[in-house]
Amino acid sequence: MISLPKLDYNEVFIQISKFLNRAIENSNAKGFVIGVSGGIDSSVTATVAAKSFEKVLALIMPEEDLTPKEDVEDAIKLCERLSINYKLITINEIKQKILEKAGFKGGVKSVGNISARIRMILLYYYANDLDYLVLGTGDKSEILMGYYTKYGDGGVDLLPIGDLYKTQVREFGKFLGIDERIIKKKSSPRLWEGQEAEQELGISYELLDKILYALVDLEMPIKSIAEELKISEEIVLKIYYTVKKNEHKRRGPILCQLGLKGIESGYKLPSI
Amino acid sequence: MISLPKLDYNEVFIQISKFLNRAIENSNAKGFVIGVSGGIDSSVTATVAAKSFEKVLALIMPEEDLTPKEDVEDAIKLCERLSINYKLITINEIKQKILEKAGFKGGVKSVGNISARIRMILLYYYANDLDYLVLGTGDKSEILMGYYTKYGDGGVDLLPIGDLYKTQVREFGKFLGIDERIIKKKSSPRLWEGQEAEQELGISYELLDKILYALVDLEMPIKSIAEELKISEEIVLKIYYTVKKNEHKRRGPILCQLGLKGIESGYKLPSI
Repeated sequence: MISLPKLDYNEVFIQISKFLNRAIENSNAKGFVIGVSGGIDSSVTATVAAKSFEKVLALIMPEEDLTPKEDVEDAIKLCERLSINYKLITINEIKQKILEKAGFKGGVKSVGNISARIRMILLYYYANDLDYLVLGTGDKSEILMGYYTKYGDGGVDLLPIGDLYKTQVREFGKFLGIDERIIKKKSSPRLWEGQEAEQELGISYELLDKILYALVDLEMPIKSIAEELKISEEIVLKIYYTVKKNEHKRRGPILCQLGLKGIESGYKLPSI
Repeated sequence: MISLPKLDYNEVFIQISKFLNRAIENSNAKGFVIGVSGGIDSSVTATVAAKSFEKVLALIMPEEDLTPKEDVEDAIKLCERLSINYKLITINEIKQKILEKAGFKGGVKSVGNISARIRMILLYYYANDLDYLVLGTGDKSEILMGYYTKYGDGGVDLLPIGDLYKTQVREFGKFLGIDERIIKKKSSPRLWEGQEAEQELGISYELLDKILYALVDLEMPIKSIAEELKISEEIVLKIYYTVKKNEHKRRGPILCQLGLKGIESGYKLPSI
């Protein structure tokens, strides 16, 4: 039976904590800025950051009509419990201005991506000004599935919980004492009305994480995964291709490498 | 004597052209969208794209007070000569709204980065809606020096001229018949008033490209580069450290890899 390993979350906390402190040392930055949404991923990331380093700023950036009031309440309550500074910035007017200037109203996805990218701009504006690093809140399930906006919520400096699957993040959240209401909340990027992660992905995180773990960590063949999990091969294949198709999001821009004399590919620097 | 190799620009054109067509095939996208500024990099990239593929859309996104009128004129003239569709979108009001909502006026760099990121949002809004890919206009000198905005002009799908140094891009521009006025223009990202690339980098592109070529392509020791170019070792070292320091911009987010049992680092997929 395929199941994700039980983790020692105290050890996980220590490792992420060290990672954050190392990042500060290596970059000479002064602190962290993070977008807190009231969801599990950002709550966990903000909690670890606040317990690991003194200077953490949270931006709560709701979109009226799309962000439920409870999300904003949960986000504020979290920041207050963690005693970290936070700013509340509603993004509707910025988005409205962008749509107006672009001159057309696109589909829900194109319009939704604008929200994620506005949040990135605001996070980096504060980060640049304070000399802080931007913390991403993506988990391993989302990153593998490409379930985020390129250069939006994907546009960050660090991914502290990027090696934890969503179901592990929920367990980690319990370990950290995150509010039940946040842990039990259905995941959603809230980029358009009624958007819901498991519905959009077409699979529960419980099952998705097992398939991803078997594919990526255990490197099991498709057929065996389907057999062990008692599901059809089509489901496993669909996940496999989604992970493959979204490689471009994880990799960054593709460079046209010119195989010409004198122009070598891969920017390598000699060590001195 | 260190000098960049003379390139066969007809061959360069063919290779970039193939690269662009391959990208369309691999991604099933329908065309390209590109920000055209009136500078040499975007003029060259747009020209190659227009000569390689039928569907190319240019966005001209000036910022009043910062973008010289000649830049907009040159950008429009280029699009008309290439017979590609273009949209003119002034970004001032969007930027103003972001600054207003953020609630403070940061330094020139933080504020300048907002402009580059607004342009990214607009390019992706059109790209998402049309199912196009976003073309970056960065050259090898800029990419190595980190002379661009992370998730701004650095936030693109493809880097067609990313393996050509700035001085080579200028030669390529001549080969392509780009307007003299554009080729001779002093390079500037135009993110704040009076910004000028060579002044800000503290070195001419002529010399910078030789140092970068010697460091990155020839992998020569710092000492020999200084001797051959008859410059101080400090200059070479300064360039070396700038390239190293900006690695984070080329690499993308840093993932906290948990060395725990069952969680392997590096997302590898088995081949099927």
